[in-house]
Amino acid sequence: MQKQPQSDSAITPIVWQGDRLELLDQRLLPHSEQYVTARTSDEVAQAIHQMVVRGAPAIGIAAAYGVVLAASAVDGDNWRADLTAALQRLAASRPTAVNLRWALDRMGVMVKGMQRPDAGRLLAEAQAIHAEDLAQNRRMGDLGAALFGSPVQVLTHCNTGALATGGYGTALGVIRSAHRDGRLLHVYADETRPWLQGSRLTAWELAKEGIPAQLIADGAAAYLMAQRKVDWVIVGADRVTANGDVVNKIGTYSLAVAARHHGVRFMVVAPSSTVDMHLASGAGVPIEERPASELTQLRGLSIAPQDFPALNPVFDVTPAHLVDVLVTERGVLQQPDVPGMKALMGG
Amino acid sequence: MQKQPQSDSAITPIVWQGDRLELLDQRLLPHSEQYVTARTSDEVAQAIHQMVVRGAPAIGIAAAYGVVLAASAVDGDNWRADLTAALQRLAASRPTAVNLRWALDRMGVMVKGMQRPDAGRLLAEAQAIHAEDLAQNRRMGDLGAALFGSPVQVLTHCNTGALATGGYGTALGVIRSAHRDGRLLHVYADETRPWLQGSRLTAWELAKEGIPAQLIADGAAAYLMAQRKVDWVIVGADRVTANGDVVNKIGTYSLAVAARHHGVRFMVVAPSSTVDMHLASGAGVPIEERPASELTQLRGLSIAPQDFPALNPVFDVTPAHLVDVLVTERGVLQQPDVPGMKALMGG
Repeated sequence: MQKQPQSDSAITPIVWQGDRLELLDQRLLPHSEQYVTARTSDEVAQAIHQMVVRGAPAIGIAAAYGVVLAASAVDGDNWRADLTAALQRLAASRPTAVNLRWALDRMGVMVKGMQRPDAGRLLAEAQAIHAEDLAQNRRMGDLGAALFGSPVQVLTHCNTGALATGGYGTALGVIRSAHRDGRLLHVYADETRPWLQGSRLTAWELAKEGIPAQLIADGAAAYLMAQRKVDWVIVGADRVTANGDVVNKIGTYSLAVAARHHGVRFMVVAPSSTVDMHLASGAGVPIEERPASELTQLRGLSIAPQDFPALNPVFDVTPAHLVDVLVTERGVLQQPDVPGMKALMGG
Repeated sequence: MQKQPQSDSAITPIVWQGDRLELLDQRLLPHSEQYVTARTSDEVAQAIHQMVVRGAPAIGIAAAYGVVLAASAVDGDNWRADLTAALQRLAASRPTAVNLRWALDRMGVMVKGMQRPDAGRLLAEAQAIHAEDLAQNRRMGDLGAALFGSPVQVLTHCNTGALATGGYGTALGVIRSAHRDGRLLHVYADETRPWLQGSRLTAWELAKEGIPAQLIADGAAAYLMAQRKVDWVIVGADRVTANGDVVNKIGTYSLAVAARHHGVRFMVVAPSSTVDMHLASGAGVPIEERPASELTQLRGLSIAPQDFPALNPVFDVTPAHLVDVLVTERGVLQQPDVPGMKALMGG
């Protein structure tokens, strides 16, 4: 039997059950811990689109398991075309994070080499992707935490923890490692509107770990920096381009601008699967716009005038020159730029 | 009979009814337009504390009417001490905005000159404060809009409209005037967490006026600036100090930092009653911290883990050097500083 990669964070948001994928429904957290069952690749694609599962690494992992489900379902002469179509539908489920495409490319290479739809081999590959992500998170956590000479006050945005990854987390992984090593004084967690990943998910993870933290309104971050309450801003990424630009949750760029203004250091933590060397800069990344209702409603409650228009880009682009450190499992890159990114990625 | 100052915006949030004050309950907007009745000065103080009425000029006006109610209730030898105590309880209802103290000082001067509690004279003064604020708003609207050479895209924060003032608005007054004059292309309204003044109140006013606008998450503002979608940031103020520092809704400072980074102009619109020449800088202003529940709950819904700690400062300080223009009813001050503020305030 294949082994489920084990997170050490007591949070297992993606669980393979032999014939189906169980996804912890992140829309219902922190109040209800319910799993959504996906028995087909299209159900996985739908779960990604509807944000049952979110976080760049986590959606890559979920999609990889989706390919296993697709392979179990196809047969007959058209299996290869059917499987390719399933891969394409999974790839279309969200446009911005590159890990999704990266994981599907890796699964696609396996498919290409097959003479028949071999779900077993694909499962081994999906579980490898899952396990590697977890191991990479732990390594990034250690690399990032090692950058703190003395205990630090940090500010983080969105959710980059066990829920967003194969386990442990990227930016939140660094925070976990720093806490473990006695290098963490305090965490300020942006609530991260509109989806409240900070309030609902990061706060939930921080509470489970007993890490000292306070929730803040996104608009309060710069004010805390002015009060010297923040030493580092630590965020994840949905895509890092060849020049070191960082595409991440809306609000990240605002933090980067404020951090630079205050001399606060800005760290991005992302596995190399988040790096897209095919895109020269962040200007080429498709920025997903989600429905206005994410701003005008909250859990079915209307919080703005009926039908008031809203603009809801859910990612933004932080130019490389505002990034002090990029932490990947391959190592730490200070002041990312084109030559540095090339050297890091072995290109 | 005394006349209720008439706003031309079809929004009358503060209505004097002869023996009581009716306050449009801003906690229930935009879904329900209900008035809270205050029959005593303590009920007015409570309404201010609980944010039935909010916005620096509006709470000053409401408090002035509160003094009228107090004067109607006192009699006997202790009337002066009782009235003074009522004034003090009104002054303590919120700590940050200076208009509250300004209006109460003005009412206090009237009280001082009285031989008996003369509610009629106090009512005339409260109505004068109310009417003057409205007239000042219209003048500031015209002065601010005149700064736009060609039609502009603006971004605003919190609510600074008819709801926050004697009518018309400060920052939103400039937006109204610019719209009327054909000098406005588009408004981006920050939702303004945690209280959602933007989503609930500014959107409601903009919709009533038919001004083209979109709601955005607070974290999206810098990203829109990077995309050159914002020409001006226009905000109000709760207190402007003698050096031109601006204390305003949390998130304002973040916008000022981002505006400067992008070369976007930053306008503060506030009547001279918002200026506190007794404080040298924003560092001396008490910053109100409100309950964590404003971040962790929304209309009774819990949106974060139970009892998760939150830090909820509801104002921040924007240093004068980040302000391009201060618009008051006394005139427009470019790049506010100590000499400029002195000249503006006639000191």
